[in-house]
Amino acid sequence: MSTYEARLAALREQLKADRLDGFVVPLTDEHMSEYVGSYAQRLAWLTGFQGSAGSAVVLPEEAAIFTDGRYTLQVRDQVDGRHWSYQSVPETSVAAWLKEHARGGGRIGYDPWLHTSDWVKRAREALAEKGAELVPVRRNPIDAVWADKPEPSKAKLIVHPDVYAGKSSAAKRQEMGDWLREQKADAAVLSALDSIAWTFNVRGQDVEHTPVALSFAVVHEDGTADLFVEPEKMGEDVRQHLGNGVRVHGRDAFEPYLASLAGKAVVADPERAVAAIFEALEGAGARIVQKRDPSVLPKAIKNEAEIRGHRAAQARDGAALTRFLHWLSVEAPKGGVDELSAAARLHEFRQECGDLRDTSFDTISGSGPNGAIVHYRVTEGTNRPLEKNSLYLVDSGGQYPDGTTDVTRTVAIGTPTEEMRDRFTRVLKGHIAVARALFPNGTRGSQLDTLARQYLWQAGLDYAHGTGHGVGSYLSVHEGPQRISPVGSSQSGGDEPLRAGMLLSNEPGYYKTGEYGIRIENLILVRPVEIHGAEKEMLGFETLTFAPIDRSLIEPSLLSEEERRWLDDYHRQVIEVVGPQLEGEALDWLKAQCRPI
Amino acid sequence: MSTYEARLAALREQLKADRLDGFVVPLTDEHMSEYVGSYAQRLAWLTGFQGSAGSAVVLPEEAAIFTDGRYTLQVRDQVDGRHWSYQSVPETSVAAWLKEHARGGGRIGYDPWLHTSDWVKRAREALAEKGAELVPVRRNPIDAVWADKPEPSKAKLIVHPDVYAGKSSAAKRQEMGDWLREQKADAAVLSALDSIAWTFNVRGQDVEHTPVALSFAVVHEDGTADLFVEPEKMGEDVRQHLGNGVRVHGRDAFEPYLASLAGKAVVADPERAVAAIFEALEGAGARIVQKRDPSVLPKAIKNEAEIRGHRAAQARDGAALTRFLHWLSVEAPKGGVDELSAAARLHEFRQECGDLRDTSFDTISGSGPNGAIVHYRVTEGTNRPLEKNSLYLVDSGGQYPDGTTDVTRTVAIGTPTEEMRDRFTRVLKGHIAVARALFPNGTRGSQLDTLARQYLWQAGLDYAHGTGHGVGSYLSVHEGPQRISPVGSSQSGGDEPLRAGMLLSNEPGYYKTGEYGIRIENLILVRPVEIHGAEKEMLGFETLTFAPIDRSLIEPSLLSEEERRWLDDYHRQVIEVVGPQLEGEALDWLKAQCRPI
Repeated sequence: MSTYEARLAALREQLKADRLDGFVVPLTDEHMSEYVGSYAQRLAWLTGFQGSAGSAVVLPEEAAIFTDGRYTLQVRDQVDGRHWSYQSVPETSVAAWLKEHARGGGRIGYDPWLHTSDWVKRAREALAEKGAELVPVRRNPIDAVWADKPEPSKAKLIVHPDVYAGKSSAAKRQEMGDWLREQKADAAVLSALDSIAWTFNVRGQDVEHTPVALSFAVVHEDGTADLFVEPEKMGEDVRQHLGNGVRVHGRDAFEPYLASLAGKAVVADPERAVAAIFEALEGAGARIVQKRDPSVLPKAIKNEAEIRGHRAAQARDGAALTRFLHWLSVEAPKGGVDELSAAARLHEFRQECGDLRDTSFDTISGSGPNGAIVHYRVTEGTNRPLEKNSLYLVDSGGQYPDGTTDVTRTVAIGTPTEEMRDRFTRVLKGHIAVARALFPNGTRGSQLDTLARQYLWQAGLDYAHGTGHGVGSYLSVHEGPQRISPVGSSQSGGDEPLRAGMLLSNEPGYYKTGEYGIRIENLILVRPVEIHGAEKEMLGFETLTFAPIDRSLIEPSLLSEEERRWLDDYHRQVIEVVGPQLEGEALDWLKAQCRPI
Repeated sequence: MSTYEARLAALREQLKADRLDGFVVPLTDEHMSEYVGSYAQRLAWLTGFQGSAGSAVVLPEEAAIFTDGRYTLQVRDQVDGRHWSYQSVPETSVAAWLKEHARGGGRIGYDPWLHTSDWVKRAREALAEKGAELVPVRRNPIDAVWADKPEPSKAKLIVHPDVYAGKSSAAKRQEMGDWLREQKADAAVLSALDSIAWTFNVRGQDVEHTPVALSFAVVHEDGTADLFVEPEKMGEDVRQHLGNGVRVHGRDAFEPYLASLAGKAVVADPERAVAAIFEALEGAGARIVQKRDPSVLPKAIKNEAEIRGHRAAQARDGAALTRFLHWLSVEAPKGGVDELSAAARLHEFRQECGDLRDTSFDTISGSGPNGAIVHYRVTEGTNRPLEKNSLYLVDSGGQYPDGTTDVTRTVAIGTPTEEMRDRFTRVLKGHIAVARALFPNGTRGSQLDTLARQYLWQAGLDYAHGTGHGVGSYLSVHEGPQRISPVGSSQSGGDEPLRAGMLLSNEPGYYKTGEYGIRIENLILVRPVEIHGAEKEMLGFETLTFAPIDRSLIEPSLLSEEERRWLDDYHRQVIEVVGPQLEGEALDWLKAQCRPI
């Protein structure tokens, strides 16, 4: 019996012991995090799935794993189809699947610390139609059978200096307190880890690639706060930084603390706080005010200090990536470079800049057909050489104290085919259409998504992921609430109005299964735009990422005059920003890459 | 005291007598119709507002009228601001306004035959927060004070022949019956007038411009139906056409009939059936299955006979419009043409084709600043001459037995300014972008809306209406469920996936208040598109409307190569379709108008 077969069997035994007829396994933690610490990697432990989003349901005789378009290929590689059925979201959902497959009268378990109340409500209703019941568990049955489950991280918190944050934690909490009084509320529960990091101007080291610390917080209308985090994680510097306005408790004190909020009006975010928090507040007799976590919007709208930091981080990061691309142009044609060694070399270039704290996610280093796996993660087992006349896709980013980066370049190793050039140029045209877009204040991200797809659509092609996600300031590389994605997509955020100061990725792509992948990604900042004669307040994007776009993949005859002008202008800026950090052959190479098309 | 002041006062007296602290006045009828018979024109009677969409609330001391972006100017012209406050949707809503303005503990009345259950639920919740109550009235208080209220129309039904319908009513009802059995339901209530007209292949004459008959229907799982319509409206031809499978009852028998559905599973559409229908079914002890009216999608997806009919109707209509545009090019420069005489002349040209049953809506004939009023309706009081060096906008359509048309052209009288040419060309570029769009099956209308706006946005401009609405087959000129409109717009339908066979308008515009309006509207048909190498099932549009686009308003240097090609190709098709119906000077003029740009 394979490892995963044995784990599935052990879980089924445990469910039997717990008198459950099934269990739902999401990929998240008590904070609804997208990326989670190793202690919360229950889905990967159970199924072998290494993607960053998914969920599973285990029934006595059946088991299903649910992933979105990014992971269609990957899930089939990593998860055993003899024991798991593959389900695609948004075409189906855990609730819809359970409605079809759960036994009438059955008891399906869920961990209330790992789901939102909305999810619980929807799943409960779906099961009710079937005469089955959704029941909260007190102890997660996976934890019961996961013998060597890691402990939650004990890593230290780090002060995030005001010079990068642009606003002190006291000032942020004061504004939150003012807002709470406007809502006639006494306090707000913060449980999203990046919300807490942003609010208190601290960073953590508990989750790979995302500098957050396992914690909960309650902010009060007077601007003071209670912060729940393991005491040994906090040095004197952090205690001093937090000051008297923040009362620190152990993480375990959070649930009992909620019970003390009887009679208070407490803001909790139904999208971000888990069901267990709502249940605890209800049990305590608090009046719950369902509102969005008050840190979400100010966190998304970058202030001038954060924008300054992003620019500085992007300039360093662009130089590292450009050095790498130059190195690749020299080494790859010789042979001997593979996905792992390329990713390692890129990491060295980033480290050489001196300020790198971490990569902002696992580098996607995909050669040939691996480039077509949208969220590919190279391992020893999948590692491929960068072969002559193939495409290489590298999507990577750095966590710097002044900013988070996320950039994708696709380069031709040797001579690309005409089809590759056609596809690359269509993706580039979509990228440029987003970068050049001007739109009225109030426009939602979903209204811009089609601009990125239109040239692929003209050839009957598309890509199965969103066009852009928000990005944090030395924080989550995927940050809400805004997103550029189609209406009805599985990922929320497309309906959030874009506002000046929001930071997004611009990353259309094209993927030919079994052959190659293409993606061009820069970060873009929403900025007010002055237009002569404008009748509305208008917004546009400023591209913040600087690294050359492979000219050997561009078919100039497919570009309009405006698109060529954008590209030439972009490459001129790349020389301006990155050039001064290079010298010798790398600089010559950059200049050649960036000459007008 | 003015007429409208007196009516408002009389209504307030009536509310007092009915022990109500307010009343909600929608612009609809018992069928949730967009255009309603004169007996249901309560909003116009009360306020003077002549637009096609809006609602009002009357409180003891305050009154508000709610309209969308199309009517921002018009409502201020027609409704007295001393007695009514102007409210814009979707920025506010009746429910939100009531929450602010209703007296705590007050009783706000509504007519359950004029609102959906969803609306009632939302408004009830909003008022509950205020401690006020929403109460159904048994008799509409406006009807109590509207002394000379017209009777509902007694006009005869008309058979809609199968040759135009493309499918017999029996076949349509059989398919509906099959669908009902799949849903494990016994029957479906149809209350939308166009649904009934489509299902029974009949047309009516009860609502101006929309050939529907006041009626209700219940279709059963065996394909038979009960139809509720005043018996004197039905001739022998219609009775024979309906056949034995349709039992006919008086319209008043509908409510009692619902009471007979005890124990049945009955499909009712929460968007289309009014609250009173749901209440009657609940009262009867029926099991309500909330589903979309089963005629909506097959009605929207035109069959080949309907498409053939549309093409024929469009060809006739295009010839009438072209003759009018030629006439205008001769007469307008001489002076003496005004909005009323122009609209009348256009109507004559349409009538000359012989098949015209009605216009499909009140012709919008707007000269100069009147063109900037999006849904302008010319009256003796507002009538303007078509002046030298101004723009004239004419939006009109015909009801033909084989199809419904809707077309807008904007023409320059004399010499347009550079700004007018710039704006017109941007609108045209948006129109062409929609017309040329290719998109995967499953794409929603809202995903295409930005294509139409992008070139206006680049100049800081926009238009405050959707880009396209569905159109019926000799039926409603605004037909759901599909729509091309921004996400979050006040009008639903943008999230409906487009399907081959759906018919839409493509009508971007630009409006400069107090100066001029521009709109270019053609009807477009969703068609499957074969693309070499396509990886998805792709759709595109075929333009069905043929009439020249004023070349004096086009700035060719702003057009891309593809846009010119589209325009030249379109004009070539106009000559092909319309040319054979013209002769002499009109034909020469058409050819000159349609020569390559």
